[in-house]
Amino acid sequence: MEEQTLQDRVSPEVQARIQGSFDRQGLMRHLGARITHIAPGRVHITLPRRTEVAQQHGYIHAGATSAIADSAGGYAAFTLFPEDSSVLTVEYKINLLAPAVGDHIEAVGTVLKSGRTLTVCQLHVFSVSEGHKTLVATGQQTLICLESRPDH
Amino acid sequence: MEEQTLQDRVSPEVQARIQGSFDRQGLMRHLGARITHIAPGRVHITLPRRTEVAQQHGYIHAGATSAIADSAGGYAAFTLFPEDSSVLTVEYKINLLAPAVGDHIEAVGTVLKSGRTLTVCQLHVFSVSEGHKTLVATGQQTLICLESRPDH
Amino acid sequence: MEEQTLQDRVSPEVQARIQGSFDRQGLMRHLGARITHIAPGRVHITLPRRTEVAQQHGYIHAGATSAIADSAGGYAAFTLFPEDSSVLTVEYKINLLAPAVGDHIEAVGTVLKSGRTLTVCQLHVFSVSEGHKTLVATGQQTLICLESRPDH
Amino acid sequence: MEEQTLQDRVSPEVQARIQGSFDRQGLMRHLGARITHIAPGRVHITLPRRTEVAQQHGYIHAGATSAIADSAGGYAAFTLFPEDSSVLTVEYKINLLAPAVGDHIEAVGTVLKSGRTLTVCQLHVFSVSEGHKTLVATGQQTLICLESRPDH
Repeated sequence: MEEQTLQDRVSPEVQARIQGSFDRQGLMRHLGARITHIAPGRVHITLPRRTEVAQQHGYIHAGATSAIADSAGGYAAFTLFPEDSSVLTVEYKINLLAPAVGDHIEAVGTVLKSGRTLTVCQLHVFSVSEGHKTLVATGQQTLICLESRPDH
Repeated sequence: MEEQTLQDRVSPEVQARIQGSFDRQGLMRHLGARITHIAPGRVHITLPRRTEVAQQHGYIHAGATSAIADSAGGYAAFTLFPEDSSVLTVEYKINLLAPAVGDHIEAVGTVLKSGRTLTVCQLHVFSVSEGHKTLVATGQQTLICLESRPDH
Repeated sequence: MEEQTLQDRVSPEVQARIQGSFDRQGLMRHLGARITHIAPGRVHITLPRRTEVAQQHGYIHAGATSAIADSAGGYAAFTLFPEDSSVLTVEYKINLLAPAVGDHIEAVGTVLKSGRTLTVCQLHVFSVSEGHKTLVATGQQTLICLESRPDH
Repeated sequence: MEEQTLQDRVSPEVQARIQGSFDRQGLMRHLGARITHIAPGRVHITLPRRTEVAQQHGYIHAGATSAIADSAGGYAAFTLFPEDSSVLTVEYKINLLAPAVGDHIEAVGTVLKSGRTLTVCQLHVFSVSEGHKTLVATGQQTLICLESRPDH
């Protein structure tokens, strides 16, 4: 959507750390989700519509919508965490605004407030159809940064 | 877990309506989830742990946990809805309390307050391992009853 | 903060309807809150810091912060409702990001999605001190529009 | 409502610590709220209905309902915290189920999961009228335990 400026870029190490973690998530692969954008404090995840992620009317299931929104927020927080830490979702709340009728959905997680222990993210999910975007879900999420012990 | 008494039973029509709707959800089948209990105002959904629903450490992904919790609440509300209506999740909030390390998880959706338009459910998800149960997620959900138009 | 353009203005009737409803809320008067901005889909409410709205350290209590955030969202939704309707908060979720240490706080409720029955608002609360603004709380809210019956 | 058994009792020190903190909250006094029960992991707060806490129809304002629910959960968590710590609400979500038409409301905060850093509470608010109780709000809350530094 927008041009990435230099300040918007994460280091190759952070990029690799996030992509590596994502690739180890069996669920994301099983759903067919992939990361399409990594910036400091913001990550996008895309999921194509197909029967395997649908609800009873053929639209993308709220469970799949929430799953990629949660992951987008988690990795957005992770871009700002120290090297040896890990991220856990404490909780999130999501409003489902419209059916996800497009060809794919795009979840955007954005850090609103980054603290030493807790981070708060905003979650948006858009349904995309031939370039036309509709907001289908909006959420708010709390994450915790777990620091690794020196001996681990 | 508990004995079903007569009052706890839904009619065969409601049972069939809910099982039929669930079976049309591609995501639930793709994840490997199934309904294990349907009572008036309460539905249980079970999901076995396997790589396809895991996060990076091999535990069940919060996205999968949330997906079946959301569905359990949705169908719990649906047991109390009129025949020609449908159910939509308005929003939910979920706290992830512990990693889902067990052999499978069980989501329990329970109606707290049933209104003509809106229903509020409580969501609990347990990790189960050889009969040992741990609460791994707890949530609260709002659902809306959509009445079908006569000509549909 | 920003100039109000013509499109940003609510009609004098809507303005009076909202101010009148607010003035009938004993709690808002008791807290010392007042409406400072009414635009279509957006309402601001301000609350000065004093002992009567404080927590144990003298900052504004999260309960007071939440109360004016909830009202700001409710009236933001109400600006877009039909004349004879009323508004009720279905639920909201709020993250408290920082202590409200300023001279006053300002809550901003903004409609994200306006539907016939349900409306979703974003809630922001800023702590303000000599023109310096800090985001102290962020939330998400669901409201319902209750239409009056003709005979009422 | 129920008998307090020996195991249900907090120590006089904890009782005094919580009552003392509550008494320093200007908002709780200004609203007319008071603590009516302190048990390990559970605190009740009561608020009488009067114009100063009402919304436009004379019922208790959702903002007042939420404020005492938030405090009940905060102090419930605090009963289980170490001596020199303090408690902060990270976030909460509340569903407003029915108007608070009774003589007073009673908020009950109960610890669901107590961790070293984070605690999750369930919040219930009842409207009480001549002994008749109705659930008017239900919520879920996350709190953080802040340990005091040795030099403080």
